[in-house]
Amino acid sequence: MTSSPAVDVVVVGAGLSGLSAARNLVALGHSVHVFEANDRVGGRTLNHKLDGANVDLGGTFVGPTQDRILALAQETACAHHPTNTVGESALSWRGRVRRYSGTVPSLGVGSLVDIGRLQFKIDRLANALPQGAPWDGKNAAELDSHTLASWLAAQHASQSSKDLFAIVAKTSWGCEPAEISMLYVLDYIRGCGGIDRMLATKGGAQQEHFPDGTQTISMSMAERLGESISLGSAVRRVEWSDGGVAVSAGSRTVTAKAVIVAVPPAMRSRIDFYPVLPVEHRSLGQRWPQGVLTKVYASYERPFWRDNGLNGQTLSDAGPIFATFDTSPSADGPGILLGFIGADYARSYDRLPPHERRLRALSSFATVFGDDAMHPTAFVDQRWAGEDWIGGGPTAAVPPGALTRYGSWLARPVGPIYWAGTETADRWAGYMDGAVRAGERAARECLVTVENRD
Amino acid sequence: MTSSPAVDVVVVGAGLSGLSAARNLVALGHSVHVFEANDRVGGRTLNHKLDGANVDLGGTFVGPTQDRILALAQETACAHHPTNTVGESALSWRGRVRRYSGTVPSLGVGSLVDIGRLQFKIDRLANALPQGAPWDGKNAAELDSHTLASWLAAQHASQSSKDLFAIVAKTSWGCEPAEISMLYVLDYIRGCGGIDRMLATKGGAQQEHFPDGTQTISMSMAERLGESISLGSAVRRVEWSDGGVAVSAGSRTVTAKAVIVAVPPAMRSRIDFYPVLPVEHRSLGQRWPQGVLTKVYASYERPFWRDNGLNGQTLSDAGPIFATFDTSPSADGPGILLGFIGADYARSYDRLPPHERRLRALSSFATVFGDDAMHPTAFVDQRWAGEDWIGGGPTAAVPPGALTRYGSWLARPVGPIYWAGTETADRWAGYMDGAVRAGERAARECLVTVENRD
Repeated sequence: MTSSPAVDVVVVGAGLSGLSAARNLVALGHSVHVFEANDRVGGRTLNHKLDGANVDLGGTFVGPTQDRILALAQETACAHHPTNTVGESALSWRGRVRRYSGTVPSLGVGSLVDIGRLQFKIDRLANALPQGAPWDGKNAAELDSHTLASWLAAQHASQSSKDLFAIVAKTSWGCEPAEISMLYVLDYIRGCGGIDRMLATKGGAQQEHFPDGTQTISMSMAERLGESISLGSAVRRVEWSDGGVAVSAGSRTVTAKAVIVAVPPAMRSRIDFYPVLPVEHRSLGQRWPQGVLTKVYASYERPFWRDNGLNGQTLSDAGPIFATFDTSPSADGPGILLGFIGADYARSYDRLPPHERRLRALSSFATVFGDDAMHPTAFVDQRWAGEDWIGGGPTAAVPPGALTRYGSWLARPVGPIYWAGTETADRWAGYMDGAVRAGERAARECLVTVENRD
Repeated sequence: MTSSPAVDVVVVGAGLSGLSAARNLVALGHSVHVFEANDRVGGRTLNHKLDGANVDLGGTFVGPTQDRILALAQETACAHHPTNTVGESALSWRGRVRRYSGTVPSLGVGSLVDIGRLQFKIDRLANALPQGAPWDGKNAAELDSHTLASWLAAQHASQSSKDLFAIVAKTSWGCEPAEISMLYVLDYIRGCGGIDRMLATKGGAQQEHFPDGTQTISMSMAERLGESISLGSAVRRVEWSDGGVAVSAGSRTVTAKAVIVAVPPAMRSRIDFYPVLPVEHRSLGQRWPQGVLTKVYASYERPFWRDNGLNGQTLSDAGPIFATFDTSPSADGPGILLGFIGADYARSYDRLPPHERRLRALSSFATVFGDDAMHPTAFVDQRWAGEDWIGGGPTAAVPPGALTRYGSWLARPVGPIYWAGTETADRWAGYMDGAVRAGERAARECLVTVENRD
């Protein structure tokens, strides 16, 4: 690397995180090249036209304190509007459908007391964790030795509480409570600002969504980067030294002063680094799996459930769909229902042929919204676990023992190699906001390397 | 793949498992080609000369019921002899050194009762698991929702019991109790035939070792395969269809009717399969991490500890070395001490510069064997987590939730792709015996594909 590098920084991955990093570097006058394995930008955001309406097959919602994605949306002129909350929510539980208002489902008093007790305890434990260093928290080792399931069992949680937290695990991390570290759960909740902020629609992370589709934000950033992005270019080799990097995708190699790797941690292992990365980085790559999440949308002439006083939001203890939202563009336009299928439900659903998937998903909708739900004008599903270069969604579902041992390596630079991706954010990790934060942080960090050589 | 394939079967990985598969196929008259990423054969077995004496930097011991590795050793003329058990074992515990005989350490009566209770329970749970299908066992889901640590806590295990099982976890899987699924622990113990069989020297898995070094077994198999092995050839791409495979390492591609992939499960992700593997195989590759284990050897003029009535076997609750063995070739030859450093101890030890590693390891030996242990004639350590194409040792340390969800995919063929490696064995998984069993099983399985085309 004695000759002058081709660009200042190579970015691996053109999701929200990688593009945010690239955009910020360009704004500071640095040159970049972005390699993207897929033939599109946006990563875990993906626009889709469903019978004329825009739906988000990936990241969808934004809410208060998600300042970085909101700022970026404003700068890229992507409007957002409130998720529908007019009407009552529905709870499909133990074979019966009940209605409720607000975020607290209509369970019996005993169940609600138990859930309140656990939420109080979880919020307290989460708030006590030091931001960006949960491994330094009180009882971190013990909390990281538990799965969410074993921790709930140790707290003598009621069956209803266990089932409700299972829905949270499926939606938030694409895993069952048996798969995920309790310390990771707490740190994630801390990063959201508490359970209510994480789970609520009004006042929480589902408060608004983007009528033009969230991928549009990435497309807008990509447009300005123009020729600096290579699609269909999976990076498989990064040669590095203190003097710079040579990043190869297929037969093309681009030299730079630094590289920002903005892919899910589990996908880092697919890149060969020469020399090899420190052992902690390689061990981490074996211990940071992506969750299993599938999203489905059905469109109808109108949001007919609203006539019946329902807001389209559901929680269910029976699969395949265990949570729904109404993402209709307006009250008189087409009605759009969004359903989440996660973890074990998704593992069996994902294997089915298309017509069976459709039937099972619509039957789930019909349980709550009636037989009209069986006859949509259009239907689509997106199985994130099957995405070859993403490895699963919505984010990592980290098992016990990994966060305390490898968490501090997750975003730690190695020579001229920097790390982005929503998993590396210390606020709103796993969300679009975390992706932007992580990209911006990596861009700032790599200036040390980039500007030292100017 | 219309033209005739170059060989019948390509084998990826020239460890004990891959070479056993290749050897068995050749014995049946089939042609093979073996690709090995490292510049040597043997995988997690590795001979080393320490001041003239042979030591095993990887797999070392064999014991009763390990029939397949014993048969292979006989066929390749590799002799084995008893591990020294003459004298008393030592226990370094809570800052004091005590002596004991047999496999039960000299803890107080209360501690021994608690350990006995837990061992009884664990053996009973392990024995009840169906061989090759632990996910079908009673309470499998609940056991797989626990780490070994959270399960011991739920059983109200004493601190001594927890510390003893931590030593077992470090040695057997290269992990702490907080990192590993209880169901995986039980299935592993079942595969060994119980805790005593797994942990004992006399009558157990440490009963004998190989004076010429265990890698010799692989070298002997490799010699007979001759030109059919390519070293320094990391396979990065496998194109496959029902008609066969094209396996590429660097610029070289070999076509075959089938491929046997005999690498640790976590390393499978580094190979690109076209078309991609079923989603379950890809998800599994993110959830099957290798442990972190380091071995050290020191040689002395004589096995001086024997003069003092010690057999060289130690258990310790203080690091870095928490278990030792005497692998001296004879009573009057040089004295050889083997020490195991695992999991968290290894994570910090592995980072130290050589002289500090040596000092810490020898200080551990000296705690039990006296100051003479500080002055060896030679010293060596082997840090398995750092091995680029192996990813860690001694075997996989599978976290909660993975075995019930992905275990049935671990060895399941995909078209002409078959899976070997000790992790895929249903007896003695994680041992040399499991490696041979898995290789032999994969060779048998792929005959369906290979002979259908003859």
